[in-house]
Amino acid sequence: MGSLPSDTLAVEMTDTHVLAGAGDRAETTEWLLNSPNPPSFWEELAAAVRESVIPRSCTKTHLAKKKMKTTSSSDEKQSIFKATLTLLQSMFPILKLGRNYKASNFKSDIMAGLTLASLSIPQSIGYANLAKLDPQFGLYTSAVPPLIYALMGSSREIAIGPVAVVSLLLSSMLQEIRDPVADPVGYRSLVFTVTLFAGIFQAGFGLLRLGFLVDFLSHAAIVGFMAGAAILIGLQQLKGLLAISNFTTKTDVVSVLESVVRSAHQPWYPLNIVLGCSFLIFLLVARFIGRRKRKLFWVSAIAPLISVILSTLIVFVSRADRHGVKIVKDVKEGLNPISVHQLQFNSSTVGLAAKSGLIAAIIALTEAMAVGRSFASIKGYNIDGNREMIAMGFMNIIGSLTSCYVATGSFSRTAVNFSAGCESVLSNIVMAITVMLALQFFTRLLYFTPMAILASIILSALPGLIDINEALRIWKLDKLDFLACLGAFLGVLFHSVEFGLLLAVGISFAKILLISIRPAIEEVRRLGRSDMFGNMKQFPMAMKTQGISIVRINCSLLCFANASFIKDRIMRLVEEDDEDDDIEETTKDQPKQVVVDMCNVMNIDTSGIIVLEELHKRLLLNGIQVTIASPKWEVIHKLKRTNFVERIEGRVFLSVGEAVDSCLQNASKLPSPTKVLVT
Amino acid sequence: MGSLPSDTLAVEMTDTHVLAGAGDRAETTEWLLNSPNPPSFWEELAAAVRESVIPRSCTKTHLAKKKMKTTSSSDEKQSIFKATLTLLQSMFPILKLGRNYKASNFKSDIMAGLTLASLSIPQSIGYANLAKLDPQFGLYTSAVPPLIYALMGSSREIAIGPVAVVSLLLSSMLQEIRDPVADPVGYRSLVFTVTLFAGIFQAGFGLLRLGFLVDFLSHAAIVGFMAGAAILIGLQQLKGLLAISNFTTKTDVVSVLESVVRSAHQPWYPLNIVLGCSFLIFLLVARFIGRRKRKLFWVSAIAPLISVILSTLIVFVSRADRHGVKIVKDVKEGLNPISVHQLQFNSSTVGLAAKSGLIAAIIALTEAMAVGRSFASIKGYNIDGNREMIAMGFMNIIGSLTSCYVATGSFSRTAVNFSAGCESVLSNIVMAITVMLALQFFTRLLYFTPMAILASIILSALPGLIDINEALRIWKLDKLDFLACLGAFLGVLFHSVEFGLLLAVGISFAKILLISIRPAIEEVRRLGRSDMFGNMKQFPMAMKTQGISIVRINCSLLCFANASFIKDRIMRLVEEDDEDDDIEETTKDQPKQVVVDMCNVMNIDTSGIIVLEELHKRLLLNGIQVTIASPKWEVIHKLKRTNFVERIEGRVFLSVGEAVDSCLQNASKLPSPTKVLVT
Repeated sequence: MGSLPSDTLAVEMTDTHVLAGAGDRAETTEWLLNSPNPPSFWEELAAAVRESVIPRSCTKTHLAKKKMKTTSSSDEKQSIFKATLTLLQSMFPILKLGRNYKASNFKSDIMAGLTLASLSIPQSIGYANLAKLDPQFGLYTSAVPPLIYALMGSSREIAIGPVAVVSLLLSSMLQEIRDPVADPVGYRSLVFTVTLFAGIFQAGFGLLRLGFLVDFLSHAAIVGFMAGAAILIGLQQLKGLLAISNFTTKTDVVSVLESVVRSAHQPWYPLNIVLGCSFLIFLLVARFIGRRKRKLFWVSAIAPLISVILSTLIVFVSRADRHGVKIVKDVKEGLNPISVHQLQFNSSTVGLAAKSGLIAAIIALTEAMAVGRSFASIKGYNIDGNREMIAMGFMNIIGSLTSCYVATGSFSRTAVNFSAGCESVLSNIVMAITVMLALQFFTRLLYFTPMAILASIILSALPGLIDINEALRIWKLDKLDFLACLGAFLGVLFHSVEFGLLLAVGISFAKILLISIRPAIEEVRRLGRSDMFGNMKQFPMAMKTQGISIVRINCSLLCFANASFIKDRIMRLVEEDDEDDDIEETTKDQPKQVVVDMCNVMNIDTSGIIVLEELHKRLLLNGIQVTIASPKWEVIHKLKRTNFVERIEGRVFLSVGEAVDSCLQNASKLPSPTKVLVT
Repeated sequence: MGSLPSDTLAVEMTDTHVLAGAGDRAETTEWLLNSPNPPSFWEELAAAVRESVIPRSCTKTHLAKKKMKTTSSSDEKQSIFKATLTLLQSMFPILKLGRNYKASNFKSDIMAGLTLASLSIPQSIGYANLAKLDPQFGLYTSAVPPLIYALMGSSREIAIGPVAVVSLLLSSMLQEIRDPVADPVGYRSLVFTVTLFAGIFQAGFGLLRLGFLVDFLSHAAIVGFMAGAAILIGLQQLKGLLAISNFTTKTDVVSVLESVVRSAHQPWYPLNIVLGCSFLIFLLVARFIGRRKRKLFWVSAIAPLISVILSTLIVFVSRADRHGVKIVKDVKEGLNPISVHQLQFNSSTVGLAAKSGLIAAIIALTEAMAVGRSFASIKGYNIDGNREMIAMGFMNIIGSLTSCYVATGSFSRTAVNFSAGCESVLSNIVMAITVMLALQFFTRLLYFTPMAILASIILSALPGLIDINEALRIWKLDKLDFLACLGAFLGVLFHSVEFGLLLAVGISFAKILLISIRPAIEEVRRLGRSDMFGNMKQFPMAMKTQGISIVRINCSLLCFANASFIKDRIMRLVEEDDEDDDIEETTKDQPKQVVVDMCNVMNIDTSGIIVLEELHKRLLLNGIQVTIASPKWEVIHKLKRTNFVERIEGRVFLSVGEAVDSCLQNASKLPSPTKVLVT
């Protein structure tokens, strides 16, 4: 235990510590009992608000400025210019590109952007269909939002555009309010309004630095949620594949399967299925190749575009649309029209629109954050979550004004972007420009594109969303986590997307509660010759100290929910110990002492304090002296305030080792108690 | 650190520990990494179920039997007899009285019982009125339930009967379903049905050992709830005091005050108010005297009975009932009639009845447990919560069959019982018999009792329910606890009893969540010459170790809700530390090391593990080596399973001291890293 105060590299030293260091113990107990008060409730609240509101960069610049010794006036002007530049760069990270951006980087970005576009165009049309919108809206959403994100976002790899899960979410939530078939104009207005709300919520979260709220969807819950959503999306594609006319508007598994079964009685068109399935097989094979050999990633990237081109040609040449193959038909030409006038704020729908916007905002953010963070960590840089949210928010706000619906980062397209060697956000700009060109000039080519192909393209993207390996891993690691995963999965499949989400969040938080208030007590014993103590189940070699029961409270909060439980268990442990000791004659004269190790207890509430006092009274009635070891800052502060420390005659020690030493020392001084265990 | 393995009283010893105890460290790390697996999810679940289902006494008897070496057949017969007797005694604790019960105890119990009865009779009639039942039902409820409880319950001081809060609760919940004025028979049936449900729930909780559920109402919440209920009850008494005819059926403050204001226009009867207020003053003075001088407690105990007798005489003599004083009128004579036929199980009301029964059960149990436990702890004995619940449950079940409504322990009457010197549950039996005698022979005497007196008696009992000192104490101790208290208070006052309860429980649990997932990191430093480390804000004398950042994770769960936060903060702390070090030239060549102290982290989920791995990767990229210190059993188990321990090259130590020693030793061996802090 003897290190020099300067704490330099000391390899060998004779220890000056002696066991009967009552003086040392007195000193550490002194430190413990006379430490400054912990921050009060208001101080903590103020600190949390301050930290949330003032971004780190400002504090850093401020600190850096303080360190500078002298400044001249020209230096000051330069520093103001620099400060403004830094501020602009932090708001628009694209400005940071200037310096290090070379021609080779630009070439990589162009290639990546074109690859992205080839994947985006077919996917966007398919996802727009999933969201029950006309095909061009998907293309709009791949055109404007990426541009806005490129200006404001900080992830270099993320690919922005419509995604399957959000498209499904929107259609499932909004078709209850406005029927997309009967009232397409009203439905569209609702979608834009919801997109606006989603953008406002996202930007709001970012500006108020409430980013941590998104973290409340645990990893396990997301895995389950995505898997459930993927299955739902796949089932929705059956409509396109089988060319079913009267499809259910509900999204849960049972209704969809019912619809499919019922459609068996309707006339069906084998050509659709043949076309769809053959290209589906082609896409899956291409995907498989792309995963097996990293260098052939572009195969899986351009496969969708090739499928679209080939299938359009086939239908055009064979006029298969007259034989039952459903085609896309007219895709409106031209760039994004302004949609400000289409935003609706009726009192009847605005509440529901806001709620849907909130849910869409959270799902979109969760996906974007997950994507952005994982690729950033591969490349080794950091993303400021709150700033990303602001970027996403503005992207969706402006999108809602330009006929786009909720866009976010897509994992599969980001992976393509990454493999294609993107260097910066410029790849998104290139993709956006390509999509705009397609909108302007090439929409007519999509007339004969069969719907079945779009269904296949979406279906081929789904296996990526269902991560069975991860689910198994979660099962092996943490059963309660898996329960959250399962809850999300089943909730989404059998009820609705929102319910699945709520269930997952509920289970995740119930788990936290359970772990925090699980009343657990363990008896600890000395490990070897050290001053460390451990649970004898974990360390079978630990040795019992005669005459002293060392009880460790194994939960982080001693509060109303577990206080009486813990008191009963401590009493039980002490009584059992007492009974065991009774058998051994040698210890009959030795008085009993109890050390309560509170090293895990982070905080204690009024119920907890009441219970500690009751425990002390009961043990004292039985002639057992109580010692408290390793109380945390807040705990010792509260115990001092309620004068509990006085009542236990100041028997509080900084570590269990010191507490046990003190008990051993006292053991000879205390008289033997009358063994009346009052029950 | 040198204690002998036998760990006897060692006062002075030369320590054999040397700082460069790499061998010792290797040994403890070995223990840590090769400890047996912690109990799995299923094992813990099985243990919890086993513990809940099998009562302790059985395990004790079983263990005791195991210890007995030899048994003969007569011994066996005797032990079976003893076991049966023990079982019966545990189910009916009254049987334990036999041995030590003397004549003096009996005398005390009779005195206490009579004192109790004198207080119970007027209070019961008043509370029956509060529950919107005829007066005799209050007397019924003071007659049968105490008898049942006396047979089965284990608290010696508790006084059973109707209480104000439960009476209010019943009337407020049930008058919405059946109007007590328009349909008194239906209302009564509903009350009995709800009482039956309440009894079933209570017995169920006890039998399934779900007693801890009652603990979910924190002490602070109960203080607020009781205060709010007391104010509501007081306002209800305005009807009796002011003799208002058309009183609102709602219970919240606003409606009641509106009613009072509106009644100002009706003809009013000053005699009622004069009578009521004068006796109220008398009762309050008597109460004050009783509290100030412990010996004069009987003054406050018999004051209600005296008020009833005096006021009845006054009204009888002056025939004040012809001058507007409302009187009790007919109180039905005779003992409890059987009410089995009155129980109703209509499909329309049974759901609501069950829900009301559950709420009443919880409130009644909470009060009874609080009362029973506090007096038991004064006298120094233990109460088995689950058994108490079974007793209460049966008491209410049988009560519902004999025209009683929900009864529980009353704090004020229990205090009277205690001060009157009760020795056992016989005081309850004496009280019950006295009430039965009153029911049989003396109900005619209550004809002229003014309602205003009953209102005064109830009002005089209310100050005991409003504990402002306790609320202030909670405010000073724990602001969030106070928020729960306030939430319960305001919820009950301005909305409804159930809502106030739910709000309080919600706030209490939100508080647990907040504390558990509050992402806090602290930098710790060495305390003096010891191997203990502490936060420098708490221990200003702590000393920094050069070249090593020691970071302690200050939350009990590293999970999805705080994992990214914690990662960011650790990175930030390390970077700030790094910047500080940059200034000092001497440490430029010393490589950076980080020790992560996980002594507080009770458990970690998949998100937490992901974050630890990301942290490790990022720090390694910066040339910083990571060491883990004091991981808990579940945590190290999970880290081993995900091979994280291998990735950090086994740098896991049982204590921070050992981790720091190891870092100091390695400091000379590692090469200087290139200082590229990648952001």
